[in-house]
Amino acid sequence: MADIIDGKIFAESLRAGIAAEVATLAFTPGLAVVLVGDDPASKVYVANKARQTVEVGMRSFEHRLPAETTQADLLALVQALNADAAVHGILVQLPLPKHLNTEAIIAAISPAKDVDGLTVTNAGLLANGLPGLVPCTPLGCILLLQDRLGDMTGLNAVVVGRSNLVGKPIAQLLLQQNCTVTIAHSKTRNLDQICKTADILIAAVGRSELIKGNWIKPGATVIDVGINRVPAAEPGKTKLVGDVAFSEAVQVAGIITPVPGGVGPMTIACLLRNALTAAKRIETTLEKELS
Amino acid sequence: MADIIDGKIFAESLRAGIAAEVATLAFTPGLAVVLVGDDPASKVYVANKARQTVEVGMRSFEHRLPAETTQADLLALVQALNADAAVHGILVQLPLPKHLNTEAIIAAISPAKDVDGLTVTNAGLLANGLPGLVPCTPLGCILLLQDRLGDMTGLNAVVVGRSNLVGKPIAQLLLQQNCTVTIAHSKTRNLDQICKTADILIAAVGRSELIKGNWIKPGATVIDVGINRVPAAEPGKTKLVGDVAFSEAVQVAGIITPVPGGVGPMTIACLLRNALTAAKRIETTLEKELS
Repeated sequence: MADIIDGKIFAESLRAGIAAEVATLAFTPGLAVVLVGDDPASKVYVANKARQTVEVGMRSFEHRLPAETTQADLLALVQALNADAAVHGILVQLPLPKHLNTEAIIAAISPAKDVDGLTVTNAGLLANGLPGLVPCTPLGCILLLQDRLGDMTGLNAVVVGRSNLVGKPIAQLLLQQNCTVTIAHSKTRNLDQICKTADILIAAVGRSELIKGNWIKPGATVIDVGINRVPAAEPGKTKLVGDVAFSEAVQVAGIITPVPGGVGPMTIACLLRNALTAAKRIETTLEKELS
Repeated sequence: MADIIDGKIFAESLRAGIAAEVATLAFTPGLAVVLVGDDPASKVYVANKARQTVEVGMRSFEHRLPAETTQADLLALVQALNADAAVHGILVQLPLPKHLNTEAIIAAISPAKDVDGLTVTNAGLLANGLPGLVPCTPLGCILLLQDRLGDMTGLNAVVVGRSNLVGKPIAQLLLQQNCTVTIAHSKTRNLDQICKTADILIAAVGRSELIKGNWIKPGATVIDVGINRVPAAEPGKTKLVGDVAFSEAVQVAGIITPVPGGVGPMTIACLLRNALTAAKRIETTLEKELS
């Protein structure tokens, strides 16, 4: 039976560490969240973010705009937040209403405050191994792996999925950890055999229980990023499952994250960590400019 | 015996295609090359670039600065070239003299004119699959592969080497071609076995003849980016060899590039292609802004 990672406990200890560091700072990091429209899931998520931001001692700025907000008004808000010295991190909650150009909005966020790591600049910094801001879910996966495995040098890592938000950044981070990294995806042949070479297997493809127990190398570490809603046994009900067939995989893997309760709870904690990183860099740069 | 790719002939046909397209344009693309100091190899290379630029019908601007040029003067030149409407591509010849900050100079180049694809912005565009400018050697490798293999969907590609300039961009490009991509490097275990899984093997590690014939899957396509100078049989003489033990590999591979005469001759041709791409994008953007 694999060791099952409790992402909730790990996230709690991560937040405790952030709170302890925030308490030592001479300034208060500020995180701004922008929510356009009334999507119920987004509203719950934004409320959780705001609560956890305050709990670690940061300032939370919430901007709730009506669904009919224009591109120009949203851009103007982003630019005002870029210029606001009390704001160190800016998160625009996605998805935006369809009449808005998401790419242009993301591009308007100052890379130094881009705590979701979505800008082209932060993707380029990650690709070139330079300090930037890394998307939250990939960062969460690496923190879990570092905690459990320590030095990953020479391990074979297989990432299933090549999205800009998850698969590709995770591959870059695993490469920085000196793993040999394979990126597999929907066009990959013999995916089962490729998965079986993995000491570290990351599933980030968004297909429920695609990866079977017999695709996993015995003792491997399996990180399941997928969150798929599927019909439950009880008629009319649904449940969440990952990209890995957990009940089989847990028999083979050495370490595994469950869904829910694995990677998911790490996301907000990593957002707060990015906000702290951004705040420290911005304030250090300001100090240098003033001295 | 493998089919041996003649990079010189391929580069000639690429340049002929560029010249034909330049002849149809309503404007003349301009490529500026900046050379600081007197490095003899760089001088030869820059002279070749200038000649080939003119041969395809573009304007060549050469800026030769003394070795003692200051950071401020070089930055001022880059900024002037950024602002010069006749210049569509800017190449600062590397390596720069040691007293100059290469990273800051590269960062000053307008991403739209960065024909070497070295800026963080172009690395980010490549990582996110958006149109940018791709480093010349990786672009050359992909053009050779497309010419020989056509559709690469589902092929296993192994890239040995993870530099920002070659290995990592090639991996991104192979992923765009729907290959399953493995990035191996100096910390990789069982490199021979990993190489043997490759339908496409890219050697970009800078270690002479590291990759042996029996590491290669029969029929694989082998692209050797390495250029290593080693002692020749004749005392006191040297010769160039690649990262692949060519005499062995040519017996096993299906298609292979030699060193010299494989990927090398593609680099300037790809630079000209990037200059053409940059010029067309810049002029199209200007037209849109004026209309």
